[in-house]
Amino acid sequence: MPGPTTVPVPLRWSDMDAYAHVNNVQYLRLLEDARVLGFREWFGPSPSMLDEGVVVTRHEIEYLAPLEYRSAPVVVRMWVTCTSPTGFTIGYQIADSTDPAAIVYAVATTGLALFDFTSLRPRRMSPAERAVLEGLTAPPPTFRWRER
Amino acid sequence: MPGPTTVPVPLRWSDMDAYAHVNNVQYLRLLEDARVLGFREWFGPSPSMLDEGVVVTRHEIEYLAPLEYRSAPVVVRMWVTCTSPTGFTIGYQIADSTDPAAIVYAVATTGLALFDFTSLRPRRMSPAERAVLEGLTAPPPTFRWRER
Amino acid sequence: MPGPTTVPVPLRWSDMDAYAHVNNVQYLRLLEDARVLGFREWFGPSPSMLDEGVVVTRHEIEYLAPLEYRSAPVVVRMWVTCTSPTGFTIGYQIADSTDPAAIVYAVATTGLALFDFTSLRPRRMSPAERAVLEGLTAPPPTFRWRER
Amino acid sequence: MPGPTTVPVPLRWSDMDAYAHVNNVQYLRLLEDARVLGFREWFGPSPSMLDEGVVVTRHEIEYLAPLEYRSAPVVVRMWVTCTSPTGFTIGYQIADSTDPAAIVYAVATTGLALFDFTSLRPRRMSPAERAVLEGLTAPPPTFRWRER
Repeated sequence: MPGPTTVPVPLRWSDMDAYAHVNNVQYLRLLEDARVLGFREWFGPSPSMLDEGVVVTRHEIEYLAPLEYRSAPVVVRMWVTCTSPTGFTIGYQIADSTDPAAIVYAVATTGLALFDFTSLRPRRMSPAERAVLEGLTAPPPTFRWRER
Repeated sequence: MPGPTTVPVPLRWSDMDAYAHVNNVQYLRLLEDARVLGFREWFGPSPSMLDEGVVVTRHEIEYLAPLEYRSAPVVVRMWVTCTSPTGFTIGYQIADSTDPAAIVYAVATTGLALFDFTSLRPRRMSPAERAVLEGLTAPPPTFRWRER
Repeated sequence: MPGPTTVPVPLRWSDMDAYAHVNNVQYLRLLEDARVLGFREWFGPSPSMLDEGVVVTRHEIEYLAPLEYRSAPVVVRMWVTCTSPTGFTIGYQIADSTDPAAIVYAVATTGLALFDFTSLRPRRMSPAERAVLEGLTAPPPTFRWRER
Repeated sequence: MPGPTTVPVPLRWSDMDAYAHVNNVQYLRLLEDARVLGFREWFGPSPSMLDEGVVVTRHEIEYLAPLEYRSAPVVVRMWVTCTSPTGFTIGYQIADSTDPAAIVYAVATTGLALFDFTSLRPRRMSPAERAVLEGLTAPPPTFRWRER
């Protein structure tokens, strides 16, 4: 099985909030850009099948370590945790670097529903999409709170 | 048992993304303001016990209906779903209005750890905090994806 | 001459940056919402002539006092400083309250070009638009730096 | 005289607004990051003299061309337009690339006042700061609207 896709995502100074750490909501913003960039790698350049063909149905995120602004990008590891006929789920880690032992700042999952932005209706997964996604599938990240 | 606290939260035009709907990440931004405003109601005006004494440890959110910008605020219903000696969890619904039958745009939960921003260390729940929070406790929102 | 339109604009906790003051860029975000809300007052409810028919061509803003997050909205005073056949300029003050003697946190102007979002082309001012805008015209705000 | 410092600044998908172009306010956000990155080049790594020792007193920006999201960074050209005993002004162009003939999306200036964040008081320019800034000085960008 291939490892996860790694996407460098630059921080912005404004990602910090009044506590001078990257704000918890901004972690989801970083994941948004990781998807935009990662989907190009998975599905080819825009107009990609998925860049314009999915809607977010859910997020789950767990924060593991505080993150301060720095000029070096964080690294988002991104993979597929499951697929269905009408959508799929992405798993992520936000890590300090590409080093496998790097600090992980957060783990998360995002549920996506396939959507046709022309007809404004849900759509079914194509065989080509399924082939790509199944090649990227691995177990979901471990959420600590569920283990308690 | 009392009902949830209802907090009107105004939208901004910029909450919309390139699809001309309120962006999924911005829903978490709306919940952040609901906490800031709701905590004043729960714990009194600033410097409140909690406004400056918690850190977010996790979020879970499920999107139920698209939301477009409008000048009328959305209404966040907000309550406590569980407490522990070192933190608590908030449940929310983002609703169209205070009408109990209003459209619900999203349901969510946020895990919070009690934190002392002076010593920069975790802290334990005070009896006064526990009394407030237990009076606000109700079952968590129902997440559809878990029922599948 | 009528006084300026006053638009209450709520702050968000996230408007603060790592210095724990409302970030300078967010002042422009507040003015964006003041325009959206103020234009309804000037031109009627959406789809308004202008809400969907202008593009921003320039901003100028001068910061006069630091602003901290609070739950009470700031008040944006907003008027027209000049018109042309293809656009107009708005003047603003961001004030602490509707009291004429309230602290002014910033003064600003925004240049707007009339635009037809259907044909994606610049357009000319209609007589109805001109009548509205000329009734709102007053001298521009005073920028201190220009006086040096 | 040396040319302006060129700072690549990545866009985010969320920089686009409901019109599917980079929102006018976000241009100022891009300039904020250009300053953070450019000041390191001018004054050395953090804690830099200026990264933590200035406050924004004014902005002026003129929009010249619409900008759409793309994965390639924009290039901010950044220089000093004037200095005083208590502050200085930066001039910028937001360009499509490092090519001197590249499309310029906006020109802008930012006024900065020197500030001591320890004493929370204005401060005077040090000889070392003056030496750096004077080596970076060039005429301000041309604003079209002033030429009318």
